[in-house]
Amino acid sequence: MTRAAVLGAGSWGTTFAKVLADAGCSVALHARRPELVETIARTRENADYLPGVRLPAAVRATVDPAEALDGADVVVLAVPSQTLRDNLAGWTPLLPPEASLLSLMKGVELGTTKRMSEVICEVTGAGADRVAALSGPNLAREIAEEQPSATVIACSDTERAELLQAACGTPYFRPYTNPDLVGCELGGAVKNVIALACGVATGLGFGDNTRASLITRGLAETARLGMALGADVTTFAGLAGLGDLVATCSSPLSRNRTFGEHLGQGMSVAEVLQITKQTAEGVKTCRSVLDLARAHGVDVPITEAVVRVCHEGESAAQMVREMMSREAKPE
Amino acid sequence: MTRAAVLGAGSWGTTFAKVLADAGCSVALHARRPELVETIARTRENADYLPGVRLPAAVRATVDPAEALDGADVVVLAVPSQTLRDNLAGWTPLLPPEASLLSLMKGVELGTTKRMSEVICEVTGAGADRVAALSGPNLAREIAEEQPSATVIACSDTERAELLQAACGTPYFRPYTNPDLVGCELGGAVKNVIALACGVATGLGFGDNTRASLITRGLAETARLGMALGADVTTFAGLAGLGDLVATCSSPLSRNRTFGEHLGQGMSVAEVLQITKQTAEGVKTCRSVLDLARAHGVDVPITEAVVRVCHEGESAAQMVREMMSREAKPE
Repeated sequence: MTRAAVLGAGSWGTTFAKVLADAGCSVALHARRPELVETIARTRENADYLPGVRLPAAVRATVDPAEALDGADVVVLAVPSQTLRDNLAGWTPLLPPEASLLSLMKGVELGTTKRMSEVICEVTGAGADRVAALSGPNLAREIAEEQPSATVIACSDTERAELLQAACGTPYFRPYTNPDLVGCELGGAVKNVIALACGVATGLGFGDNTRASLITRGLAETARLGMALGADVTTFAGLAGLGDLVATCSSPLSRNRTFGEHLGQGMSVAEVLQITKQTAEGVKTCRSVLDLARAHGVDVPITEAVVRVCHEGESAAQMVREMMSREAKPE
Repeated sequence: MTRAAVLGAGSWGTTFAKVLADAGCSVALHARRPELVETIARTRENADYLPGVRLPAAVRATVDPAEALDGADVVVLAVPSQTLRDNLAGWTPLLPPEASLLSLMKGVELGTTKRMSEVICEVTGAGADRVAALSGPNLAREIAEEQPSATVIACSDTERAELLQAACGTPYFRPYTNPDLVGCELGGAVKNVIALACGVATGLGFGDNTRASLITRGLAETARLGMALGADVTTFAGLAGLGDLVATCSSPLSRNRTFGEHLGQGMSVAEVLQITKQTAEGVKTCRSVLDLARAHGVDVPITEAVVRVCHEGESAAQMVREMMSREAKPE
């Protein structure tokens, strides 16, 4: 039986613990807060992040990372992107030396502009062949409700990707493999920025035409940046590119889209941060994506606009006006 | 001043008449039914198809196609796809010999598997350089409300595409040009089929993960077919491919998605046809798209599934199960 440790008990980490258990793994779910661990043990439910979803008996919550990691074949990292480095520093001595390291995170580190798998390799010293990322149209709530969903497991080592595929495949959750780690991680990170832009447009009262245009141009800018970083352009047409982007931009469940909607309705970033409990990765990631794009000379107009609204005080109305009003030209 | 004739006063034809008028054209809007023409003239509103939207004074409704076409520089065709050939046969003697012929239609003719521009050339004898298609993320209602939208005008003759671009560009409606007529028309036609599939999934209670997977795979099958027909693959990543597909599949305003939703909720095709007033192009187009795909040896699993549900009595639940449950494999 595969032993999995899921580090991070937010909505996606908790959902993925359930998926792994449903796929037949024994799962340790590590949360920082003892109250949460206690509640999960007592009620079989993560009421904070995934209310109403019963966790299988094979999911065991623990506050102790050493206990979670002991004997793990698969280590799943599911913490907020910008906290990964610090968290990993503490966990690294506890990692079983042969374990696969699977990232569920979708972000680019501020300052270093490193993708999550790069941070993992750097901090843990693991070879690139041990590190994988999972990404796709995967709204946690829908998967927790066992709606049919597909995803991509990206790893340079195809054999390891296939092991991970087997470890987490269930009748309602279908993983496909892809060797293009760069493309999958970038798709996942930039989509949060584009979803934020779609949220802004929605908050301003615009509908599906505007959102579809933003999604189309957003995927184009993601693909341009991806190609500059050595990604395979076809990844962006797949589940981890287009699929993830469309799900996140369409769903009222998306934190990033919701964050943008509040901005579009006229709230300031500080005001939105006060009323939202969970992290909207795009607010931070937009800066790192822009840094990455500038370093590679790639034009990312939507990301730039999101940075101006989130960090430079530009109004949401001004941002959408600029994005939609370019000169008439060939597509 | 450009003189435009819009033939067909459904929601999209009527909306586009408004766009042309707002762009500075003099517009004749031809409707078949005298009552509708009379109502538009009296109330400035097409209450049947676009209630609540005031039509500009430059839009003049007429029941007489000869009057509409007299002196027209631009002839816009906006009738249901499967009626185009018959309608055009009557209009052909009235067409000004130099007029540009712009198709707003999104379908593939049953039996012949011809795209709308091919039908136009065949029936009218016009050269391919005179025929263009307009396609993009263009839900009529949102454009009628002057929400910012972008579109693509496809024509093999770039100069003509630019004339048409100028004729219909307004601050809320931005046309881009693209020489790939085949790709733009195919994207528009197949998206109605994929939207129908998304509607079925929605009617069955599935959410954004499932819809995003269908959109991703739907665009892939559209692109495969497009390449077999000589389209430029990049068209499918643009507004007339991805953009149109996402808008239609996401919107509760989409007739094709709504049609599918009713099927997903358990109604039969005949029952849905009874309660819906407007044409859902995908119900017919799915057959022609499948014929086209078979003739070119292209695999189109979603289109096949839609044909089975719409025309061969397969249940909606069975269809979605089949579409989502393939073998684990590389993406």
